[in-house]
Amino acid sequence: MTAVPVSMTDVRELVDGALRAAVGRLDPRTYRVAAYHLGWADKEGHPRKAPAGKALRPALALLSARAAVAPPESALPGAVAVELTHAFSLLHDDIMDGDRMRRHRPAAWTVFGEASAILAGDALLALAGEVLLEAPGQGSARAARALSAATRRLIAGQALDMDFETHRRIGLDECLTMASDKTAALLACSCSIGAVLDGAPEPLCDALEEFGADLGIAFQLADDLLGIWGDPESTGKPALSDLRSRKMSLPVVAALNTDAPEAARLAELYARPGLSEDDLAEAAALVEAAGGRAWAEMEAESRIQRAAEHLVTARLPEPVRADFLHIADFVTGRDH
Amino acid sequence: MTAVPVSMTDVRELVDGALRAAVGRLDPRTYRVAAYHLGWADKEGHPRKAPAGKALRPALALLSARAAVAPPESALPGAVAVELTHAFSLLHDDIMDGDRMRRHRPAAWTVFGEASAILAGDALLALAGEVLLEAPGQGSARAARALSAATRRLIAGQALDMDFETHRRIGLDECLTMASDKTAALLACSCSIGAVLDGAPEPLCDALEEFGADLGIAFQLADDLLGIWGDPESTGKPALSDLRSRKMSLPVVAALNTDAPEAARLAELYARPGLSEDDLAEAAALVEAAGGRAWAEMEAESRIQRAAEHLVTARLPEPVRADFLHIADFVTGRDH
Repeated sequence: MTAVPVSMTDVRELVDGALRAAVGRLDPRTYRVAAYHLGWADKEGHPRKAPAGKALRPALALLSARAAVAPPESALPGAVAVELTHAFSLLHDDIMDGDRMRRHRPAAWTVFGEASAILAGDALLALAGEVLLEAPGQGSARAARALSAATRRLIAGQALDMDFETHRRIGLDECLTMASDKTAALLACSCSIGAVLDGAPEPLCDALEEFGADLGIAFQLADDLLGIWGDPESTGKPALSDLRSRKMSLPVVAALNTDAPEAARLAELYARPGLSEDDLAEAAALVEAAGGRAWAEMEAESRIQRAAEHLVTARLPEPVRADFLHIADFVTGRDH
Repeated sequence: MTAVPVSMTDVRELVDGALRAAVGRLDPRTYRVAAYHLGWADKEGHPRKAPAGKALRPALALLSARAAVAPPESALPGAVAVELTHAFSLLHDDIMDGDRMRRHRPAAWTVFGEASAILAGDALLALAGEVLLEAPGQGSARAARALSAATRRLIAGQALDMDFETHRRIGLDECLTMASDKTAALLACSCSIGAVLDGAPEPLCDALEEFGADLGIAFQLADDLLGIWGDPESTGKPALSDLRSRKMSLPVVAALNTDAPEAARLAELYARPGLSEDDLAEAAALVEAAGGRAWAEMEAESRIQRAAEHLVTARLPEPVRADFLHIADFVTGRDH
């Protein structure tokens, strides 16, 4: 996995140390599951040279401190807390969705059992709040409140996503609501948490949060496009994987909600119990023909534009704005 | 289930309203699972005249505000937060332990599926932090930090309890550690959270917490004694239920750790794949003969004594002290 750029190498080391210190407080049984899930250890508990994750959320958190003209280190508890919350959600989502693989390794629940994985996720969530509340200064309670609210939205998004699996008809609006809750809420929190911790004025915090909310939707759209048309070499998933699992991703739902004749045929394919490789290729072509691909590309572009405008509103120092935009280009794949 | 006494009827109504308002913020899918779990609704979502729970933790939370000479209502966010945390842990514990029944009804996970129950538990945990952080005043961040720490201990206790199921030899000390984490930590937090929210001096908060820690162990001992010798009519569980499930409860572990000849025979019975009714009756007699019952009764008594001494140290107003002791007698079954 490629890491987030923007002179973030030292940042990653900084966050890594603080993250390890936080997770190190867990009891030994829970720690073992968490360390495996975070890629630090193999299933026997031996240290593992981890191919570092993207560390996207921590990078945004530290950058948001710079947006408030505070030293990036002041946002460390925020960076750790959003990464812990992200780790919690992946750990539980894998159990709920029955996903057996995570980052090219067996998912934690397949290694340690569901019970231990549920418990480790609970621990990471509780730890996120604890770390944030220990941050010095007045901003920590406000930041913890913002993270709790983001977590509640993340949960609401996952609940809606699971509901989509009942194969009822899904509107594009509710699919956007799902992405907004499940993906964008925590990114929005990450983009503002450093400023919130620093006690920055509300308009700045709000603008950063709105930047993150639009970035989050663009990120989800890019991810959904990769889930259909991504190169298996770089995504690490089989070609057409989201169609294979009949995921109600944004381009698919956009296609299904058009009047195009292709929409009906796509709905028919999605309702079938098994899809051949030919069916999958046809489904991808139908999403494209019904305009789902073009809509997703345009919508991602427009969200990035809007995200950029929030940074102008916020009157960020120029280098910080450039760094935020650099990350935006990176996560939406516009730089490669 | 009998409710906690001590003029707590109006308190329960107060807490019930605030609890419903908090849970009412959840998305509709997650709300449905939570409302079922809390006894407010049947599985179709229809309101249900709930036989009220004990509301032990909220009662202690409100009492702890009175200990700081603050109005009980000031502890409402604390009362709601500890009850949400308790509800979260029961919801997830039932999944982890494979328990299919909870308060004479099918456990939530058997009704809504594991995925929805995991998610609803996550939501209740996140909500607990959110409610507490919204409490007005300086004490709320300190209270939220205390609750996070208690939650981490609760999780460590559950991890240790699950580890006990590997049937290794368990020391009495680690069994007490388990009870201290899994049961006593949240009770200790409940007994002090109202004072913490009010910004009461640290010595008072500490004494209340220590009261709760000793009360919690006494409570667990009483519960473990009921799990073996309790009357099925009043416990709602079959006779000898903890022996049936080979629970490593405190009286059992105490008996196993003696040099008495009965200890070896008990270990042998516990290692068998199936136990007849005669075996169960013999096991109960062995726990008693090895001194496990007498130890548990004495230890419970001594914990209650120590708990009472903490209240003397704290110099509580006399009626508040009497109310705390009344609850202590109630939960350890000394009043009936």
